[in-house]
Amino acid sequence: MTTIFDDPAQFAATALSGFAALYARYVRPVRGGVLRSTSGPEGKVSIVVGGGSGHYPAFAGYVGPGLADAAVAGDVFASPSTAAIARICRQADNGGGILLGFGNYAGDVLNFGVAAERLRAEGIDVRIVPVTDDVASASVETSAKRRGIAGDLVVFKIAGAAAEAGRSLDEVERIARHANARTVSFGVAFGGCTLPGATHPLFTVASGQMALGLGIHGEPGIRDESIVSASELARLMTDRLLSERPAGVHRVGVVLNGLGATKYEELFVLWTAIAKRLADAELDVIAPEAGEFVTSLDMQGCSLSLIWLDDELETFWTAPCDSPVLRRGAAIATSPGRDIETDADGPLSFPTASPDGKRGGICIKRLLEAVTQMLRDAEDELGRLDARAGDGDHGQGMSRGASAALDAATVATAAGAGSASVLAAAGDAWADRAGGTSGAIWGLLLRAWSTALSDHDPIYDKAVVAGARLALDSVCRLGGAKIGDKTLVDAFVPFVEGLETAANAGKPLPIAWAEAASAAKVAAEATKNLAPRLGRARPLAEKSIGHPDAGAVSLAMIAGCAGTVLVHAEEHA
Amino acid sequence: MTTIFDDPAQFAATALSGFAALYARYVRPVRGGVLRSTSGPEGKVSIVVGGGSGHYPAFAGYVGPGLADAAVAGDVFASPSTAAIARICRQADNGGGILLGFGNYAGDVLNFGVAAERLRAEGIDVRIVPVTDDVASASVETSAKRRGIAGDLVVFKIAGAAAEAGRSLDEVERIARHANARTVSFGVAFGGCTLPGATHPLFTVASGQMALGLGIHGEPGIRDESIVSASELARLMTDRLLSERPAGVHRVGVVLNGLGATKYEELFVLWTAIAKRLADAELDVIAPEAGEFVTSLDMQGCSLSLIWLDDELETFWTAPCDSPVLRRGAAIATSPGRDIETDADGPLSFPTASPDGKRGGICIKRLLEAVTQMLRDAEDELGRLDARAGDGDHGQGMSRGASAALDAATVATAAGAGSASVLAAAGDAWADRAGGTSGAIWGLLLRAWSTALSDHDPIYDKAVVAGARLALDSVCRLGGAKIGDKTLVDAFVPFVEGLETAANAGKPLPIAWAEAASAAKVAAEATKNLAPRLGRARPLAEKSIGHPDAGAVSLAMIAGCAGTVLVHAEEHA
Repeated sequence: MTTIFDDPAQFAATALSGFAALYARYVRPVRGGVLRSTSGPEGKVSIVVGGGSGHYPAFAGYVGPGLADAAVAGDVFASPSTAAIARICRQADNGGGILLGFGNYAGDVLNFGVAAERLRAEGIDVRIVPVTDDVASASVETSAKRRGIAGDLVVFKIAGAAAEAGRSLDEVERIARHANARTVSFGVAFGGCTLPGATHPLFTVASGQMALGLGIHGEPGIRDESIVSASELARLMTDRLLSERPAGVHRVGVVLNGLGATKYEELFVLWTAIAKRLADAELDVIAPEAGEFVTSLDMQGCSLSLIWLDDELETFWTAPCDSPVLRRGAAIATSPGRDIETDADGPLSFPTASPDGKRGGICIKRLLEAVTQMLRDAEDELGRLDARAGDGDHGQGMSRGASAALDAATVATAAGAGSASVLAAAGDAWADRAGGTSGAIWGLLLRAWSTALSDHDPIYDKAVVAGARLALDSVCRLGGAKIGDKTLVDAFVPFVEGLETAANAGKPLPIAWAEAASAAKVAAEATKNLAPRLGRARPLAEKSIGHPDAGAVSLAMIAGCAGTVLVHAEEHA
Repeated sequence: MTTIFDDPAQFAATALSGFAALYARYVRPVRGGVLRSTSGPEGKVSIVVGGGSGHYPAFAGYVGPGLADAAVAGDVFASPSTAAIARICRQADNGGGILLGFGNYAGDVLNFGVAAERLRAEGIDVRIVPVTDDVASASVETSAKRRGIAGDLVVFKIAGAAAEAGRSLDEVERIARHANARTVSFGVAFGGCTLPGATHPLFTVASGQMALGLGIHGEPGIRDESIVSASELARLMTDRLLSERPAGVHRVGVVLNGLGATKYEELFVLWTAIAKRLADAELDVIAPEAGEFVTSLDMQGCSLSLIWLDDELETFWTAPCDSPVLRRGAAIATSPGRDIETDADGPLSFPTASPDGKRGGICIKRLLEAVTQMLRDAEDELGRLDARAGDGDHGQGMSRGASAALDAATVATAAGAGSASVLAAAGDAWADRAGGTSGAIWGLLLRAWSTALSDHDPIYDKAVVAGARLALDSVCRLGGAKIGDKTLVDAFVPFVEGLETAANAGKPLPIAWAEAASAAKVAAEATKNLAPRLGRARPLAEKSIGHPDAGAVSLAMIAGCAGTVLVHAEEHA
């Protein structure tokens, strides 16, 4: 809903004045609208556009060289007055006549039409082009009755480019009408919007439903359906528009428009599916745009506009323009990008290892096999523990990371890598596949540990213990956590200290490791029992403040699992 | 909520590929991110930015000349992997070293930090600059712990400009750190967001509340408060940031950022209040931006970022750049705008009128007095009638329009205007002040009627009757409604026909008018009793389809009122 306002009655006028203050490089405010703050050539046809407010960037955001010369803004969802249109046209007149562009709604048709008559009576040549792109609003046979939606931008852009190119008013009108005749749009809505100060939505869409063809002020659509996948939505929108494809058309300009609360990344996802369907239809896509071009406050939904291009329309569609919302043409001179040499993660070759080093690598791989199996088994348990404090994905992430580490270790050992290289490769793979902070921590931990090992020597107990300390230091330094923060550091510190103490006391590694793992387990259990410090229902927030972190538990589990493998290996040795 | 997706697990990657396909003029896709599609000069420092997805235009939308050379994108709200960062840095390297920019979050600090270490080991000079602008996330004494929000854009923009200007890596790092140290942001949230595929919001804000300082992933804020007015919100945000204003600063760069569902016009309204407060604080605002720069899916809320400019920072803040989301510098050469000659509604002088004409003008003014009073009295009744089908503002609009018409007629008669000029001025004023479609219709109706009158002759009965027909034709032609559409045409047609029939039968005007007004009233009553054709709860939609229109009723009331005045005038004559 619309939340930020002072006096709802002044919302549109205040928004316009704020816009003009922000974008003074493009516009200057006049009563009821904005004018370009720069001049076009004397005698250039002026493009004046407008309609109700609440649709930004329609229409003030279209003002600038190569696009519109002025925009007239009515109240929210209401046509501007005849007087405002006429007044701003007089101000925008360059002596070349005026083209008035607006969406085909009763109030706009009236006010722009009457303003045009007034201005003609004053001796200014004015033409009107109501945009009629919304295929859902009337049949193809009665296309002059169709409403104007995001096709507004397409038609105005092309008219603006024709005017910028010095075409006469007759020509600009012809080209704009031609662009309008070749522009079709189809929209869906997932949710309505609320006017400033209103307590109830102006219109709604039932939860889980999408309204096909619902207008940007809630005008009736074709029908409601259950919300579908992006691919299915792309099919639905594209097929409807392709059914009006004229013969012989092989190029389209595209605007994929979000209505307000449907966000960019959703549009980009949708675009991948739309692009595929357009390619399947053997249409070349020229200068597509996806973003917010005609909104309806915070309405949820989107529309797809296609313009069937010919050479003339393509020239104007791709011509430079410079407005707050749409810019074409380079502002900075550049040269084409260099060839990218590689899309790989760096060298996959490993330093030559000694037989001892290779044996060490295989030992690490076996450890990872056991840890991976254990983490797969513990995935649900860790997930449940994490869900108490976070988003519940810790079990999945750990399992995914360990599997990736095992895969990398398998590749590395098969390539004859030594223990240091195998562990480093395993750490990198863990970080890259597990994702999130814990994945990065584990990658860091293993990689730092690997620097104490060698590809040539056997895995000496001393190196393992030294590596543990390096791993801990690295995690603390780059991760920024200290003991008591309820992260895996809480379990890792007693583990490393226990390992060092036992090793310094001369105990063999399997014994020292088992003792250290026990200490880690005790510490991890302690974090489990910490009471939440905050009662607010903000999972991510709580995670960073006082809830137990599943990371300490999983570290202790891994330490325990690895300890069992070491003891087992010792017994078999 | 996030509605458009296929596989939620692939949402971020698919969105990135869609983005890259749309913006090929700026970027080319690589695994895990995007690279500039154009080359900077050999040896230029590369700016590589990144973080989790779900924040578009952060970070891929920042890529282009004068800004970033590459962006690395993690999963939704998750840091990109160390390997992806390192890989894309290798590809983005121009031989001048790399500056890594990212928001100060644990996962990002880790992954970017470790990637930097890996790259340094490979011989690439890499610096990291975590952005720490969010004043709500830590105290000024521990500002290095602050999170990064929309200040990301500010810091990256300045770093990008310094790199574009050929500065060395040492210099770019120094400037970026300086920019970060001088950038502060404060945000409020009105509502949370829902991850793709999730059935529940990731976090929420209680209805009617705003969460001060809530993080863009739901990290804890300072406190919740009731939602306030735009002016109060501006005060709250601005004061918090001004409390950290360094001594001697007189210029600020500004980013007013919407989080997703808080829309442009709300930001523009807020900006007017913020600009006033900054001016009161004697701060010059340099190149402000308001829009969506760091979103959080469809989270509702906004943040204000200020950078305390010095000469060096201002140079880089205002330097040209060209990315999908931010462009500075002209793409088209322009000259300053012409002086605007007038901001008035056209000439307020009237043609010289004869005494007969002036008497006619005064007669029209008296009619308008009666009609205005009647409409004021009927305002509520017409409002209630309109609310059955529309937005309930018909009574207000008619009353406002008639008052404006009366004012204009008063001015015109005082200036000695004749009947044609008085009625034309009244019509224009009605249209301009009443707003909406009915205001435009009434303006048109009166203006068309005026063309049958004269400023020189008395108001002949014949002229009044001819004017009625002109008015009807004009309304039908420009308004596009025909009888049966349940608009005022339904009452106006029987009125005009009744008037013509009675006049042709030789009846004097008051009699003819009264008969015509009766016919209009009967027709208007009939429209009242029409049952709604549609049952869907979409007020605006219903209005345009089948509900009775209050316009027919108000026309009949006006006709009746005017008839009474005419009869009364006749009796007094």
